[in-house]
Amino acid sequence: MDEKGLLDLDILYKSLSDNTAVVSLMWANNETGVLFPIEEIAEKVNEKGVLFHTDAVQAAGKIPIDVKKAGVDMLSLSGHKVHAPKGVAVLYVKKGFKFSPLLIGGHQEQGRRGGTENTASIIGLGKACELAKENLSVLNTDVRELRDYLQTRLLEKIESSSVNGDLDQRLTNTVSIGFDAVEGESILLMLDREGICASSGSACTSGSLEPSHVLMAMKVPFKSAHGSIRFSLSHYNTKEEMDIIVAALIPVIKQLRDMSPFWKNGKMV
Amino acid sequence: MDEKGLLDLDILYKSLSDNTAVVSLMWANNETGVLFPIEEIAEKVNEKGVLFHTDAVQAAGKIPIDVKKAGVDMLSLSGHKVHAPKGVAVLYVKKGFKFSPLLIGGHQEQGRRGGTENTASIIGLGKACELAKENLSVLNTDVRELRDYLQTRLLEKIESSSVNGDLDQRLTNTVSIGFDAVEGESILLMLDREGICASSGSACTSGSLEPSHVLMAMKVPFKSAHGSIRFSLSHYNTKEEMDIIVAALIPVIKQLRDMSPFWKNGKMV
Repeated sequence: MDEKGLLDLDILYKSLSDNTAVVSLMWANNETGVLFPIEEIAEKVNEKGVLFHTDAVQAAGKIPIDVKKAGVDMLSLSGHKVHAPKGVAVLYVKKGFKFSPLLIGGHQEQGRRGGTENTASIIGLGKACELAKENLSVLNTDVRELRDYLQTRLLEKIESSSVNGDLDQRLTNTVSIGFDAVEGESILLMLDREGICASSGSACTSGSLEPSHVLMAMKVPFKSAHGSIRFSLSHYNTKEEMDIIVAALIPVIKQLRDMSPFWKNGKMV
Repeated sequence: MDEKGLLDLDILYKSLSDNTAVVSLMWANNETGVLFPIEEIAEKVNEKGVLFHTDAVQAAGKIPIDVKKAGVDMLSLSGHKVHAPKGVAVLYVKKGFKFSPLLIGGHQEQGRRGGTENTASIIGLGKACELAKENLSVLNTDVRELRDYLQTRLLEKIESSSVNGDLDQRLTNTVSIGFDAVEGESILLMLDREGICASSGSACTSGSLEPSHVLMAMKVPFKSAHGSIRFSLSHYNTKEEMDIIVAALIPVIKQLRDMSPFWKNGKMV
């Protein structure tokens, strides 16, 4: 992964051998929103006779996804990222593909996943996907504009801040922004009091104090990787809300920097 | 398992050896509601140094459960059986007990289960358990009365019907009743049209056409095992609803028997 969060595909392709069983890759990174060229990668991986899975949790509902066109063997997506209930997800498995269940014990879902089906959430996820498809076009217009507006204002108003990840190859609703010399968790706690939800690192490491492995791989300096948070927008957000975020963040970052041992005389030490 | 659905504990205890890693047993059977003496079994199993897990899905909310008193190492229960949302469950693991997660990938739940927590459903399950505890006493009075009323009326009004499982060692809210010469699935379809939900066999085999392995183990004859359905009541049910069930079932069973090749001149052939 380079400093923009992009992959070196040559390294990936060269690493494929006869011993490679499966390649599994995110469609979009869950911290930076950086998009990977899944169709292209799937083609190359398939050429080598290797199975290909993509984790499309972050991408679903944000970009058009056509599993056949993409040439993926398996794809996963999660309900709570497309405004469906939590606790429900999809694993797409290509027709004819051999599949061994992880959760055994019952004949449900044709033996692919044991356990009483959560019917209400499954229906909710179906409806959410339907709505996501209807709203897909505004991701490239309204939502992108909102995101860019938020990003520009934050960079303008808060010194020593920077965007993580490639600015173009990126989901239009996501911005990961690093604030030097502060802690992401502290920012989140203070934003939460203002009713603003954002994310530091990935939820998968929320119990851990390590800085994001994604940002570390991108060689984002340790002290600003710690102060990186992600905003994920949707068509439910408004410009007024972006102004509220900016107005809330300015004093939050100031206050945290005033307390930070890494911040002196207006810059990181 | 004997004809009343009770276990021969001597066989269980004799089968325990130095090679036994874990014993896992339902607290109450999910088809008949027959209760097993879990406290007693846990004690004997523990004496042999064998780990003990109980599946309390069917028993939770129906009988008092005290994991410490019961002496179990692990216990599972499921939300949708205690009026909580579907898709959420509990695995109790005794303090200090070594535990290796089935679902890996994230640090959530202190590394015991990867994946974004379904917070709303978890809170719902907590509340449902609270309410279940409050309502536990009526299981032995109102609910038992309702169940016995339903059972008596059905046996009285529908010939060649019989209750599966021990009448005493049984959850007070459950009755499994077999109707000779008909198919459980057909009964359910016809009851469903009347707005009555019941269950044939277990949900875990709902995709399968085999008769219930539980009823087969109890040596319930094949043709009446096929026509067995389970009613599970709660304090939300009323006597009027029991009358509605009886009134609906009489013509349903008659109609199905009229079509059945196993029913002639008022009895099973």
